[in-house]
Amino acid sequence: MSAPTENELPDRDAIQSLLEAGDEAAARAAVADVHPADLADLLDSLDDAEQRLQLFRLLAPETAAEVVREVNEHTKADLAERLSDARLTAVLERLDTDDAADLLGHLPEDRLDRLLRRASPQVRRNVAGLLTYPEDSAGGLMKTEVAVASESETVREVIETIRRHADDFHDIHDVFITDAQRRLAGRVPLRSLLLYDDDTPMDKMMDTEVVSVEVDIDQEEVARIFEKYDLLSVPVVDALGRVVGRITVDDIVDVISEEATEDILKLAGVGDESFTSGGPAEAVRSRLPWLSLNLVTAAVSALAISLFQTTIEKAAIAAALMTIVSALGGNAGTQTMTVLVRAIALGEARAAGVWRVLLREVTTALANGALIGAASSLCFYLLGGRPLIGAIFGISLVLNFFFAAVAGSLLPLGLKAVGVDPALGSPVFVTAATDWLGFFTFLGLLSLVL
Amino acid sequence: MSAPTENELPDRDAIQSLLEAGDEAAARAAVADVHPADLADLLDSLDDAEQRLQLFRLLAPETAAEVVREVNEHTKADLAERLSDARLTAVLERLDTDDAADLLGHLPEDRLDRLLRRASPQVRRNVAGLLTYPEDSAGGLMKTEVAVASESETVREVIETIRRHADDFHDIHDVFITDAQRRLAGRVPLRSLLLYDDDTPMDKMMDTEVVSVEVDIDQEEVARIFEKYDLLSVPVVDALGRVVGRITVDDIVDVISEEATEDILKLAGVGDESFTSGGPAEAVRSRLPWLSLNLVTAAVSALAISLFQTTIEKAAIAAALMTIVSALGGNAGTQTMTVLVRAIALGEARAAGVWRVLLREVTTALANGALIGAASSLCFYLLGGRPLIGAIFGISLVLNFFFAAVAGSLLPLGLKAVGVDPALGSPVFVTAATDWLGFFTFLGLLSLVL
Repeated sequence: MSAPTENELPDRDAIQSLLEAGDEAAARAAVADVHPADLADLLDSLDDAEQRLQLFRLLAPETAAEVVREVNEHTKADLAERLSDARLTAVLERLDTDDAADLLGHLPEDRLDRLLRRASPQVRRNVAGLLTYPEDSAGGLMKTEVAVASESETVREVIETIRRHADDFHDIHDVFITDAQRRLAGRVPLRSLLLYDDDTPMDKMMDTEVVSVEVDIDQEEVARIFEKYDLLSVPVVDALGRVVGRITVDDIVDVISEEATEDILKLAGVGDESFTSGGPAEAVRSRLPWLSLNLVTAAVSALAISLFQTTIEKAAIAAALMTIVSALGGNAGTQTMTVLVRAIALGEARAAGVWRVLLREVTTALANGALIGAASSLCFYLLGGRPLIGAIFGISLVLNFFFAAVAGSLLPLGLKAVGVDPALGSPVFVTAATDWLGFFTFLGLLSLVL
Repeated sequence: MSAPTENELPDRDAIQSLLEAGDEAAARAAVADVHPADLADLLDSLDDAEQRLQLFRLLAPETAAEVVREVNEHTKADLAERLSDARLTAVLERLDTDDAADLLGHLPEDRLDRLLRRASPQVRRNVAGLLTYPEDSAGGLMKTEVAVASESETVREVIETIRRHADDFHDIHDVFITDAQRRLAGRVPLRSLLLYDDDTPMDKMMDTEVVSVEVDIDQEEVARIFEKYDLLSVPVVDALGRVVGRITVDDIVDVISEEATEDILKLAGVGDESFTSGGPAEAVRSRLPWLSLNLVTAAVSALAISLFQTTIEKAAIAAALMTIVSALGGNAGTQTMTVLVRAIALGEARAAGVWRVLLREVTTALANGALIGAASSLCFYLLGGRPLIGAIFGISLVLNFFFAAVAGSLLPLGLKAVGVDPALGSPVFVTAATDWLGFFTFLGLLSLVL
């Protein structure tokens, strides 16, 4: 198979027709050579949960296990709920421990207990332990399949171990070396096992500069460590430094993508909604809270405006100009805030320091404000507007850009300082601040001179 | 070394003092045991370019090469420019071909030619070829260090090859198997070399379902393939299917993070600015174009308002209410647009189809609009507002939510259809549309009844 192209993907409509016609043999044949990742996409794209189940039942247990790893969370929860205990157990036994725990996490307590009792002792012991860690911690990401050897073991002995556990170790990249107290002491990449003589002991070839993570750190922190140190897998250690599991880069790739999606959606006030996972009801649930909050902040701004009704009656053009002041200020504030939220997420903001950030943003805002303010008040004057109103319009723009820089910097940094996700809430409050201050500055100054 | 914590990071201030005092021996000792990734962070954080160069010169060539891979683009360009030809050549010879090409990409044509002439034939041949590919294509990401074997070679022969090229192959995960025409035929993970007997030929143990990518596809597409198929490395093939290089997952982790950052910043109208890469001058350059565009769209909205000056003179409260209609509409439009931009970036929007997307978004918007519209017009009435104005206020909100859903869906989908990045420009135009339509609907309806 060359690069997978869309032509080689399974024909969704054809397979759907076969399932509707009840021709299971033909449907089974149609999906026989399809890559599990593409089968997962196919399952995700089926609207009818019954049909999804019907197709899933046609897969061999090995394929089914590979497909379950790849489907989205919505499909995974649905399959976990609908599959029989027997079928679910068969899939569980073939999954890596991290994927098994992930699947079981979708089940209610009583069914989970029943399935664990049914499972093999190995699955029961390993997976039940993983379920105790928070989903978004290192423990929640790790698998317990780890190749561990002692410092005195030789290449020959380690290769023997790997051969014996070939089924468990289907994606290992490294053997982790532990000392007499079972604490992590080093790392030997598989490649070294090919390069060194059979009698070489691990402590003569191991890399002692092993990056490891503690079991309770956040997945975002784990992702940053993978990015920074270019890792393929990282050993997870307990408080005593003993190896309890391993996180692989494929799971981190998903974490990085998920975390970015979360940040992007939060910045737009769309909670944890995902495009694939639900219909309008879920979209309303995730978006309405932010719209309601925005209604309150917009009402406060409107109140600021209504205080200046006499000013507006004297110069109705002010109603038009004030919207420009607030729109541009909101935009400038969003720019500052977004750069900061991303810098915080990537761990770049800490090093720079608050004062340096603030100085940079305020300088930028004053420069942009001066340029935009001068240009727009000049245009207003040239189009026949009153010079005094034009001057106040320009000055208000500069001032609002200044407010925007301060609010756009301090809000995310402040939220971060008190332990709240800066992407959450920042946009609504920053635009509320620039709206309110923009209206107030412009109409306030205008009321002094009219 | 256990998990890297902030305590173990190099002391920036102490090292800076040593460099200022000219105590190079002490500075060298202070950085001797620091991980290259942490050294890279240290270099990135130094403001003074001379000091950065001074510190970099203290590093052994091997360490220097590892550090160069990890510094940010700003530091990389600066080092490439300031290092002597001799020093730069020494670093280049120790880098993988992809990192060498990346570093050379920062140099002007004439210096590049000079350095390539100076370099070893191997570097010259491999790296010069890589420089011909666009930076954000598969060719721009790949390295030419690939372990390739023919179908008839045995485990023993392949291990021999790996041992011979141990320096080039320091991070290989797979051996790619080619047929008599040198086309990609299969893949053998390193692990299999440990599991099979020495005399097994590659074609008896290879996996023939190899995912590969063509050299000219976009890096975002490459990242999606890595995510979907959970890959560690992917072979890059030319138009004839011959293996020309390899992309590793550590570079993809960076691509995913970069692409997400790009999307987030574009959605806020902040061009390609990055927090680490420059001062206010760069920030003004990247933000001013969007603010200028926003000034034009805000002026158009203001024009719409100024058409209704008599209406506003009759009921100055309208100036306050219209800002609520436009703010909420803008927010609803941003929600729809952001969900779509992210869905397009993750490749989720295609499968669903335009009509289904539009239906979902319009339904959501009408539901949210009805709830927000009813609540806010009721509040307005209860606070003593005129019922007629309240009713028109509520109706305008519902209508503007509807416009927001349509504009927020069609704009990104339309931009995508004509080959423009949906994240670019969508926000400005969506809020322009909801501002304009919001003001026009509300003031227009009001002018009919006042």
